[in-house]
Amino acid sequence: MNSQQRTHMRTEIGEQPVVLRATIDALLPRAAEAAALARGTRQVLFIARGTSDNAAVYGSYLIQAYGGRLATLGSPSIATAYRSRIDLSGVLAVALSQSGRTEEIVETLAWARDCGAATLAITNGAGSPLTETADVAFLTQAGTERAVPATKTFTTQLAALAVLAIGLGAGLDPGELRQVPDEIEAMLARPADLDPIVTELAPDHGVVVSGRGLAYAAALELALKLKEACYLHAMGLSYADLLHGPIAVVDADTPAIVMAADSGPALDGTVDLARRVTAAGARAYGIGGGDRLAGVCTRSVPGPRLPEWLAPLGLIVPGQLLTEALARRLGLDPDRPRGLSKVTQTA
Amino acid sequence: MNSQQRTHMRTEIGEQPVVLRATIDALLPRAAEAAALARGTRQVLFIARGTSDNAAVYGSYLIQAYGGRLATLGSPSIATAYRSRIDLSGVLAVALSQSGRTEEIVETLAWARDCGAATLAITNGAGSPLTETADVAFLTQAGTERAVPATKTFTTQLAALAVLAIGLGAGLDPGELRQVPDEIEAMLARPADLDPIVTELAPDHGVVVSGRGLAYAAALELALKLKEACYLHAMGLSYADLLHGPIAVVDADTPAIVMAADSGPALDGTVDLARRVTAAGARAYGIGGGDRLAGVCTRSVPGPRLPEWLAPLGLIVPGQLLTEALARRLGLDPDRPRGLSKVTQTA
Repeated sequence: MNSQQRTHMRTEIGEQPVVLRATIDALLPRAAEAAALARGTRQVLFIARGTSDNAAVYGSYLIQAYGGRLATLGSPSIATAYRSRIDLSGVLAVALSQSGRTEEIVETLAWARDCGAATLAITNGAGSPLTETADVAFLTQAGTERAVPATKTFTTQLAALAVLAIGLGAGLDPGELRQVPDEIEAMLARPADLDPIVTELAPDHGVVVSGRGLAYAAALELALKLKEACYLHAMGLSYADLLHGPIAVVDADTPAIVMAADSGPALDGTVDLARRVTAAGARAYGIGGGDRLAGVCTRSVPGPRLPEWLAPLGLIVPGQLLTEALARRLGLDPDRPRGLSKVTQTA
Repeated sequence: MNSQQRTHMRTEIGEQPVVLRATIDALLPRAAEAAALARGTRQVLFIARGTSDNAAVYGSYLIQAYGGRLATLGSPSIATAYRSRIDLSGVLAVALSQSGRTEEIVETLAWARDCGAATLAITNGAGSPLTETADVAFLTQAGTERAVPATKTFTTQLAALAVLAIGLGAGLDPGELRQVPDEIEAMLARPADLDPIVTELAPDHGVVVSGRGLAYAAALELALKLKEACYLHAMGLSYADLLHGPIAVVDADTPAIVMAADSGPALDGTVDLARRVTAAGARAYGIGGGDRLAGVCTRSVPGPRLPEWLAPLGLIVPGQLLTEALARRLGLDPDRPRGLSKVTQTA
């Protein structure tokens, strides 16, 4: 890679406003289809792996916090390894896969259908086996993603999940969802100066990435990006789990990145967490959380001007930029991490 | 700490056969109470944090793989931060807390009850607020645990979950459960030589800990112990999630510890994973998995002679011993990790 050349990853981060607009335009009119599919079901079960699993965490919090419906994560190996039979009547099974071709996910969704679940696929893979398996398919409009670390396929999955939550009757304003592409465009047009954070993170071996509630999904996804593209020992931990033990792991060489929406019920806890991290002698880097989080962090980056339920779509963007810049600083090609290919088969 | 003195952690690891026997004796006769409580419910929702959350992962796989019933993990912040109302009729909510005093867990179980769930507490805290909140309480008989990193409270939680699965009608043999304390006693009487692994891990900053299916719970728990007591950047990752991205993170300085029962549907995948780790130029340390896993690992430690459904109770034991020995090698006191206290409040 010529160092003057833009990486695919950086290009694809920049494409997010356009592909999010296309995804929202394509899927918002179909919210009623999700509603019809969910009729007679009482809960949601997500089926996903990797980045898609982090998107599912967003869906799970969103539907439970705002939609008043149980929504939890399934374990594909129950279907594919244990071949267990479970009564899933009354369950809406939602499978997320960027390619729609990961056999384990296709097989697990087919299993869920055979166990009595209604099935929805969220995928970027038009005509993929996953769309053939599901009752309804929500196609994201991310286009081709050439960098191995997913960026635009992740945020378009979140947008599809926001549409699903609206379809399931969460009292959420579709107009707010429509503002997301503009806000991400604005964030990309006035990027925060990440250079001091990149410089400080470059010699570190490990980092904790944490968030509470909906922002936890963005924290898990940033931890995954940092592992994939920077080979950093990035530990994605929920706010509460971090306090329940692994807070011991932060120290002068192991900072924490904490992420929060600018408002909402998760902010207080995240501010407290950042305070505890710096009190332990470690650096805390804030993404989002407004002035309150910035005020207790070592360094911080502004988050999106979005309501809490949509904040993860914007919070991940500085995280993506940070990952891409840190990989380059470390002399790595973020587009082609060692040992990884774009479609992973684990069946 | 005098270096000749036995740590509390080492003493408590050694107490596991006795406290497991007491726990199984106390709870097996009460399996029918779990059955009665679960009548009219169709699924299980676990409420837990930290080590107890890793125990819940075991319960979730056990009940789904062998009990034919949906069993997933809840998100306490939905109750405590978002204060969302969810219909939980038909749900058996199972809260796990060693002390029974973590406010977040007590509050979430009360919320589940108010949302219509039947409620079970699994705790070592007799007379604790959690037992007061639950319809039925399964008290583990771990006695006082003085080391901050949980050992015997974890394995007794697993035993209580095995009783729950039996109560829920999983076709599992209680006689096999009764053999667990003897087998752990035998493992402790003929401990594997962990010294070469301790020596090789001592200079490492990070490690990946992985397992598939039921063994994933033991992997998550070992990763937590290594973070708590050794401040190691230990990343607990499922077999499939590891392949879906973070396999890039293993390298000459970042080994993987892989755990598996000696037989069962998760073994093949774990053997493949260890092969990929060593092919990537990283060390793979096996715990359990019989000759097949040992044959593809850099070093390995025998696991318990237990059927797959009970293997996690024995698989964690070499992991506990490894954690305790590594902490001492690093000059750390495993009983008192920095920044942690025994009862964590996150509410």
